[in-house]
Amino acid sequence: MARWGAASNHDGMQRPAPLRLHPDRLLPADAGVRAVAREIYGAVRDLPVISPHGHVDPRTLLEDQPFPDPASLFVTPDHYVTRLLHANGVPLDALGVGRTALTEAQSRQAWQELCSHWHVFRGTPVRYWLESELAEIFDVQVRPSAETADAVYDQVAERLAQPSHRPRALFQRFGISVLATTDDPCDDLATHAALSADPTWAGRVIPTFRPDAHLEVAAEGWADLVERLGKVADVDTGTYAGWAAAMELRRQHFIAHGAVSTDHSHVDVRTDALPPAEAERIYAAALAGRVTTQEAAALRGHMLLEMARMSCDDGLVMTLHPGVRRAHHTPTLEAFGADTGHDIPLRMELTDALRPLLQRFGMHPNLHLVVFTLDETVFSRELAPLAAFYPSVHIGAPWWFLDAPLAVRRFYSAVTETAGFSRLSGFIDDTRAFCSIPARHDMSRRLDSGFLANLVAEHCLDEEEAVATAVDLVSGRPTATFKL
Amino acid sequence: MARWGAASNHDGMQRPAPLRLHPDRLLPADAGVRAVAREIYGAVRDLPVISPHGHVDPRTLLEDQPFPDPASLFVTPDHYVTRLLHANGVPLDALGVGRTALTEAQSRQAWQELCSHWHVFRGTPVRYWLESELAEIFDVQVRPSAETADAVYDQVAERLAQPSHRPRALFQRFGISVLATTDDPCDDLATHAALSADPTWAGRVIPTFRPDAHLEVAAEGWADLVERLGKVADVDTGTYAGWAAAMELRRQHFIAHGAVSTDHSHVDVRTDALPPAEAERIYAAALAGRVTTQEAAALRGHMLLEMARMSCDDGLVMTLHPGVRRAHHTPTLEAFGADTGHDIPLRMELTDALRPLLQRFGMHPNLHLVVFTLDETVFSRELAPLAAFYPSVHIGAPWWFLDAPLAVRRFYSAVTETAGFSRLSGFIDDTRAFCSIPARHDMSRRLDSGFLANLVAEHCLDEEEAVATAVDLVSGRPTATFKL
Amino acid sequence: MARWGAASNHDGMQRPAPLRLHPDRLLPADAGVRAVAREIYGAVRDLPVISPHGHVDPRTLLEDQPFPDPASLFVTPDHYVTRLLHANGVPLDALGVGRTALTEAQSRQAWQELCSHWHVFRGTPVRYWLESELAEIFDVQVRPSAETADAVYDQVAERLAQPSHRPRALFQRFGISVLATTDDPCDDLATHAALSADPTWAGRVIPTFRPDAHLEVAAEGWADLVERLGKVADVDTGTYAGWAAAMELRRQHFIAHGAVSTDHSHVDVRTDALPPAEAERIYAAALAGRVTTQEAAALRGHMLLEMARMSCDDGLVMTLHPGVRRAHHTPTLEAFGADTGHDIPLRMELTDALRPLLQRFGMHPNLHLVVFTLDETVFSRELAPLAAFYPSVHIGAPWWFLDAPLAVRRFYSAVTETAGFSRLSGFIDDTRAFCSIPARHDMSRRLDSGFLANLVAEHCLDEEEAVATAVDLVSGRPTATFKL
Repeated sequence: MARWGAASNHDGMQRPAPLRLHPDRLLPADAGVRAVAREIYGAVRDLPVISPHGHVDPRTLLEDQPFPDPASLFVTPDHYVTRLLHANGVPLDALGVGRTALTEAQSRQAWQELCSHWHVFRGTPVRYWLESELAEIFDVQVRPSAETADAVYDQVAERLAQPSHRPRALFQRFGISVLATTDDPCDDLATHAALSADPTWAGRVIPTFRPDAHLEVAAEGWADLVERLGKVADVDTGTYAGWAAAMELRRQHFIAHGAVSTDHSHVDVRTDALPPAEAERIYAAALAGRVTTQEAAALRGHMLLEMARMSCDDGLVMTLHPGVRRAHHTPTLEAFGADTGHDIPLRMELTDALRPLLQRFGMHPNLHLVVFTLDETVFSRELAPLAAFYPSVHIGAPWWFLDAPLAVRRFYSAVTETAGFSRLSGFIDDTRAFCSIPARHDMSRRLDSGFLANLVAEHCLDEEEAVATAVDLVSGRPTATFKL
Repeated sequence: MARWGAASNHDGMQRPAPLRLHPDRLLPADAGVRAVAREIYGAVRDLPVISPHGHVDPRTLLEDQPFPDPASLFVTPDHYVTRLLHANGVPLDALGVGRTALTEAQSRQAWQELCSHWHVFRGTPVRYWLESELAEIFDVQVRPSAETADAVYDQVAERLAQPSHRPRALFQRFGISVLATTDDPCDDLATHAALSADPTWAGRVIPTFRPDAHLEVAAEGWADLVERLGKVADVDTGTYAGWAAAMELRRQHFIAHGAVSTDHSHVDVRTDALPPAEAERIYAAALAGRVTTQEAAALRGHMLLEMARMSCDDGLVMTLHPGVRRAHHTPTLEAFGADTGHDIPLRMELTDALRPLLQRFGMHPNLHLVVFTLDETVFSRELAPLAAFYPSVHIGAPWWFLDAPLAVRRFYSAVTETAGFSRLSGFIDDTRAFCSIPARHDMSRRLDSGFLANLVAEHCLDEEEAVATAVDLVSGRPTATFKL
Repeated sequence: MARWGAASNHDGMQRPAPLRLHPDRLLPADAGVRAVAREIYGAVRDLPVISPHGHVDPRTLLEDQPFPDPASLFVTPDHYVTRLLHANGVPLDALGVGRTALTEAQSRQAWQELCSHWHVFRGTPVRYWLESELAEIFDVQVRPSAETADAVYDQVAERLAQPSHRPRALFQRFGISVLATTDDPCDDLATHAALSADPTWAGRVIPTFRPDAHLEVAAEGWADLVERLGKVADVDTGTYAGWAAAMELRRQHFIAHGAVSTDHSHVDVRTDALPPAEAERIYAAALAGRVTTQEAAALRGHMLLEMARMSCDDGLVMTLHPGVRRAHHTPTLEAFGADTGHDIPLRMELTDALRPLLQRFGMHPNLHLVVFTLDETVFSRELAPLAAFYPSVHIGAPWWFLDAPLAVRRFYSAVTETAGFSRLSGFIDDTRAFCSIPARHDMSRRLDSGFLANLVAEHCLDEEEAVATAVDLVSGRPTATFKL
């Protein structure tokens, strides 16, 4: 390794490598195809950002305080970033994970770890996003490295202190037309209400109903959740019927605050109905702490089916993000909390698991079921065929580990030949890293353009249709899929 | 959306977009590679079409009546077309699905739905095939759309009325050297016999022995099938041994009518042998309507093994098309019948499931076992390794949802490095859309050429070998695999 | 087919086709990308070969006798070669499989079969490797065919008789810096010791601890292995605790002879701990021949976990090569022995199976767990996410059926976006074909270069970083992963 790490120069001078974003990045390498891709990309580059699913904290926008420091913004809360540093030997502790606020020394240490491990992100979208953010939002012009870490830190910190880099200013600069948050059914949504009521704020920030914990009846603390749900809904949740009624009421509360969708992430998507008495029996057993793993899974499937029924009734879009073994490494969970980089995907099955739901509600005009997966095998085998028949099934964009250039190309390759483009959800950033939103959407638009340009280059699509499709993917699809 | 839908022009003029087939469509975009691909494609473009598996009704050719109307030819019976319209909100009823004949008004309505939803087929092979058919067979020169629907309808209808567009004329024009149909074991094959006996007909149309329903012993109506089988075979099918004897006789009947293969499509390909007494016991229980799901599956596996044994004895090629949950949406099945677009693939396993069969018969010189899959994961993991050892195992071409440009490229990528090209079946169209046959075979030849051209461009294959391989894939492989 | 088979010339002259290796073979076809790939490849082409896992017999190097004949070197022992000939109708017997020495007539017959079936290897890496070996090591300049078989045979045989083509001379010429063999725990490693002690030999040849058979407690002959293990370790292996103690001692013996790793290949990678008493109970039952399949699998999982524990204690790298149904065709196993081309991959699962191991030892600084797979679906779904969090998990290179150009590209596509390049093992040849080592490593370096060149061409990586990454993949990764 040269002195400047990955940043050494060929002329031997020890200047840091520059950080430059090429205007054609991620477009196809072939000159002819790239020219077409540029045309398509030009038509979508500046369209508003629609973000119907993500994890930004709405208080950030309500309070509009300056972001505290570079590491708290870019490193500590983002498991995309911390996981790969951790895999390369950096303890999560050194990155501030699990802490609520960082001292400047701690922030600089975390930042130093990030920059000195810049090479481990080669080939990853995380690097792509971070470079885009640093260059475009913070005007950084040198590649991060051990040597440049402090200088980059200073520059980012300096920008963060300016009014132009407060959350609301960035929200506007990013061109976000709608931003969804993710919220527990018991949340009173006061933050959303206050933001809506703020006469100085014109953005659209909407909650998302995420009842996962309420469906895991064998998990520790579930009975407390039930009690809390009963309280906020003012319904007796001592029975399954009461639980369902409370859920309906909370969904109405969310709808009243602008919610358009519910989100569900469990290990599978089984949706088998239970006889009502059996649902009540298991529910009672769960409340009493005497439920088996099998019974809990059965009730979860029944509850998921119930959620689909409620979507038919109240019109909330239902999104599924299944198939993850959460907190794979228990000691890390205990020391640092959830969402710390060790959620690991599982094999997925949709055809039989969703059949009970689709038999009942698959043709219901109110149901929009958006299915995401981290198991790529279901794209061509199950998800595209389902979405190519059921009007209610929409194909969720490549998500999380798959929100990456080559994965997106595999996704398009796998689903569009069966389902075309009309059955896609459009891009979902699903991020908790606020500043990554424009980079993520821009990456997606570049990839859309490249894929469509290839279809044009192989004479399967006219350029004018490719442009229309790209615009639809950015604007039409998410608007229609999420009923925005 | 502009007034002409997806067909608006950049100059703002409201002329419909043209329908033009580019001579290089689907060939690689890179100019150097494309030049090689053109050479290879030129060597196979005009070779005769061999179609050893499909679903064309032989009466069409026996009777040689004009096709009734555009929708009945292109839309109503083709679940590739109707499923995606249905997913986009068009009721199957509006497409004539489930009806035996359409009035002109109904046909025009279905046609209008197709044309006004032309954009939903972007990126799909269905669009590619339809455009090829409209342009090449019916001389259509405008892109279908809501506005052009009636004009295109009129043109297609006008051509259909001409002698040049009757089934036999098209069969000859398509250059079909052999066409296989799909038939129940109880079929008397009178249509095939009449066609063979017709002195004015020189084409080769052969039946395929498809006994699926006879192996699903727990299904409603199975006992009636058994009785019918006994009658047509003139054998007592009251025992399993009698059933097997009847099957052997029907296979002889098919062979006498030109059949070269049997076809089998069940949810899995388990082939475990049962002790003879156990097979008889389950068979009897099934006849009495007292069979469990597990027993029925066990007997089906045994029967499938028996079919392989018969293939060793009588030489019929055995093709497997497994892994589909048929009629996923029961209400649609009940309203519109089978094959209406909601058969959804399942995860597949071959290594252990086929082992009993291959342990017994895998080295038998008479056995040709052609394995298809809709689960792409088995291509590189199981199917190519099996075919790269067992002389009896042939790799079936990408089928159904996978008969599409990008899927075919994935298929070649997944299997040829392990199994080369000599273990492939060659292209199978498997279509019930007669007019799509030339477009499908042409698409396949273009994709073969592109894949081989890439090997040449990367200096892994000489061009002369690439040409020989392409010719072999079109002529040699299907002829040898299907013993034609 | 022309007279020269696949080797006919376009001018009609019956000269054999030449065998020429293009300097740019396997580099990307696009001229711009190829230029970048050439630069990268130039930086790694001549780096020493590190081979930390393979199956070369160390006696070959100790004795340094001339290789006996062409077929014994290139055909008979190499199941990559024999399997595809077998699938194309050549009996294993005609290839000398299962025989210890070939007469010249037998060798010529096997060679003739290989050459006359040259076309069946089109598109496979086997052909690529064989052509590289023939051209680069044996100066063959004509493409093998039925007609040229004898001439090529003669030339190879002539070279083999020369001192320049003895094993040690080739080892030096190949630029091998370290070569690992694969050995049973009971092996006394006398060959390795003698080689190390040979003052005329300077190469590094190290053993690998491969205890597979010792963990399959239900297999025939296991009790004998236990007895033998007890003898060589001088420990009472009548209890599970004794077995574990003996294993620890044998690992020390291997370490003393230079071993750096253990290797494990079972049908799955379950690693659930058993209560000590239960492990002892099953162990005793197995010794008494009264173990069930379930118990044997449970004990195997426990033993695999124990091996990980030992790796934490003694520092041996632990490699996993799971998921193969060995000897799929029993009659071939019985007639010709193991490793004769019919080992068939199985579906794989890592997330849950490895969880017990990773919960306990995943953060242990001594553990390097290198995971290989033949089921490509786990690359993006499970293996990359695991390696992108756990410092102990390394992603094994594409192996066996997947050690091929298009599969390697799929591998890079599937893992690097999640795990970058720093979590990769670097290339593993895993070969028993000594002469294929340089061709295999060269192929890998070309593919690395092409993949990285694409990242440069799409402006995701600077060329200087791409070069550094390529060098790291060839030198840094295997050295660090295998603690060399």
